[in-house]
Amino acid sequence: MNYTLSHIPERTTKPRDHGLTMVMDKGLSIRQVEDFLSTSAAYVDIVKLGWATSFVTPNLKEKLQVYKEAGIPVYFGGTLFEAFVVRKQFDDYRRLLDVYGLEFAEVSDGSIEMNLDDKCNYISQLAKQVTVLSEVGSKDEAKIIPPYKWIQLMKAELEAGAWKVIGEAREGGTVGLFRSSGEVRQGLVEEILTQIPFEKIIWEAPQKEQQVWFVKLLGANVNLGNISPNEAIPLETIRLGLRGDTFTHFLDGLGLNGFGSGH
Amino acid sequence: MNYTLSHIPERTTKPRDHGLTMVMDKGLSIRQVEDFLSTSAAYVDIVKLGWATSFVTPNLKEKLQVYKEAGIPVYFGGTLFEAFVVRKQFDDYRRLLDVYGLEFAEVSDGSIEMNLDDKCNYISQLAKQVTVLSEVGSKDEAKIIPPYKWIQLMKAELEAGAWKVIGEAREGGTVGLFRSSGEVRQGLVEEILTQIPFEKIIWEAPQKEQQVWFVKLLGANVNLGNISPNEAIPLETIRLGLRGDTFTHFLDGLGLNGFGSGH
Amino acid sequence: MNYTLSHIPERTTKPRDHGLTMVMDKGLSIRQVEDFLSTSAAYVDIVKLGWATSFVTPNLKEKLQVYKEAGIPVYFGGTLFEAFVVRKQFDDYRRLLDVYGLEFAEVSDGSIEMNLDDKCNYISQLAKQVTVLSEVGSKDEAKIIPPYKWIQLMKAELEAGAWKVIGEAREGGTVGLFRSSGEVRQGLVEEILTQIPFEKIIWEAPQKEQQVWFVKLLGANVNLGNISPNEAIPLETIRLGLRGDTFTHFLDGLGLNGFGSGH
Repeated sequence: MNYTLSHIPERTTKPRDHGLTMVMDKGLSIRQVEDFLSTSAAYVDIVKLGWATSFVTPNLKEKLQVYKEAGIPVYFGGTLFEAFVVRKQFDDYRRLLDVYGLEFAEVSDGSIEMNLDDKCNYISQLAKQVTVLSEVGSKDEAKIIPPYKWIQLMKAELEAGAWKVIGEAREGGTVGLFRSSGEVRQGLVEEILTQIPFEKIIWEAPQKEQQVWFVKLLGANVNLGNISPNEAIPLETIRLGLRGDTFTHFLDGLGLNGFGSGH
Repeated sequence: MNYTLSHIPERTTKPRDHGLTMVMDKGLSIRQVEDFLSTSAAYVDIVKLGWATSFVTPNLKEKLQVYKEAGIPVYFGGTLFEAFVVRKQFDDYRRLLDVYGLEFAEVSDGSIEMNLDDKCNYISQLAKQVTVLSEVGSKDEAKIIPPYKWIQLMKAELEAGAWKVIGEAREGGTVGLFRSSGEVRQGLVEEILTQIPFEKIIWEAPQKEQQVWFVKLLGANVNLGNISPNEAIPLETIRLGLRGDTFTHFLDGLGLNGFGSGH
Repeated sequence: MNYTLSHIPERTTKPRDHGLTMVMDKGLSIRQVEDFLSTSAAYVDIVKLGWATSFVTPNLKEKLQVYKEAGIPVYFGGTLFEAFVVRKQFDDYRRLLDVYGLEFAEVSDGSIEMNLDDKCNYISQLAKQVTVLSEVGSKDEAKIIPPYKWIQLMKAELEAGAWKVIGEAREGGTVGLFRSSGEVRQGLVEEILTQIPFEKIIWEAPQKEQQVWFVKLLGANVNLGNISPNEAIPLETIRLGLRGDTFTHFLDGLGLNGFGSGH
């Protein structure tokens, strides 16, 4: 840090098991990746190349190399996995991961129908090759999954070999964990947390209000995903209680109560 | 493309007559233009320097040169044309196009009153000098143009020499083709399409939901405009059915039915 | 300017006393700062490193140097001041300003409780060291300050030695001067202006509609703040009546009436 402030919430350090920030790159140029890493490498644990953007992005190998040199693992968005599966090209997908030297992969069913046995089978197969993130939740607004089902899916997918499970939100933050207004489905999140350790879940939370909500609920070291590259620095300040949105929240716990505007 | 996926919708290739992506540059620096082109040059057909931003942007000639070297034509936003016309400086405007070596120009009346004869006269005069894009629709929310009138204007402006007509939306996507909520005026679009070939229209669709709506209606090769530079890659995946929003839509037509989440 | 247009509103020039544009940098990289300045240095008067982002931003000294070479003063966001004060580290804060060679500082109470005497005391102490901007308005949506109180605070803080007072809005533009919808609290602004000269106030107005509203009310040379770096060029066109949103507004005053779409 550039200077000393007392009473800052403790943050996990790299390589982090939790307190992860997952950033979504939806088509950055090489130089934009360099810019992003020059400010945010210390705060970002893993980068997703959003959905199937890797299909159309030039200089893919060179870009992956820039991330690799910064020590930040990259994976392809789950929609790409689904695009291969729906075309019965799963073996091609496995080879693709090797061709690009990827060490992480996502298994999801946000856009296609897949029964849980098949999904867990994909997870366990891929888990022999890479570290697997598995995503729960549909991109289809009309498809509401009840809380008990989220829990059942998450448990099964972790048992099948997923390193973490991801709570779906889309880039815009409007489905899965969130209502169409972007508001968090609070009861859903709380019920999930009665059964699944918070360290095992990465919450997709692209909007600031969503990030704030999760930091207030679960603290500085909650795992958050689908963060825009230029929001990695702002998110770090939210985690540390150094942005207006969480400033007051952290004061009490840190023994600085009585000062916050809420008092 | 970086790898092979079967069943990808066919895309037109450069120089495209339709399937155009028009990007709005509202003040990029030289290096930002280079970054943008390094990822998106293959997917972008034409760039608009938004409204009159060219008036205040430094290094204009150098920037135009960067676009020229990438083979991407540039034009000044219609509001600049209107700014010259309202000041009775149309001849200055014609000279300006030559000074900057522009090969395209936009004629619009989004902010000023202009009768159709005058507008067509500007179009035909400019068409002797450059390729003309002509824009229909007001930036004034209170001014609703009925569908028959949109059709009448588009026909007349194409006959006067416009290469394409543009359906107005503003940068934010809230007037002209769209309601103030950003929702598409669906009946308007459908009625226009009964009379004007879809290849002749560039739909301004800055918001993702609008892009998705037009791709679903008119396919991968619809002409779309006012795309933000960092949305050119995401838009290309929407066109190809490789983003969640259009993933299911394209499955049926490509013989992959029965897999989509909507089934 | 790149070419000549008649009837352009007169703009103040640097160093500006009013007509200020204050930009918020919430974590730009060195190269992104260079890009931003290469297009916008002439239009930007002062830069704020948003809230406490300076705590976590690498290369802070080098970044400040880039701004310094462009002749643009930088200050730390008010939330950082508050973070030091709430920890009883105000003396550290004063030293920090010297360590980084800053010539401006912000005093605010957006997230903490501070009585007016204490606030004015901080202002007058800091005013001996740097030029002080003082901010009025809470970041807490539930805390509505009535107009007479805004006026009382602004007067007192200017008398205590603040160079300008800032009307609070948050990065998103939803509190303080604005309703949660982003709409301006018009009566509040008008009442403030009956007592405080408009040159002394910087209005935080991150959203385009807010910028337009203030330019229409107070003209091309209103002081506006919390502008995103890539909105500095667009804002300049709004000030000059060269964007659709203010195009018609300026026509009448400039003797070009009868042409605007509103007529």
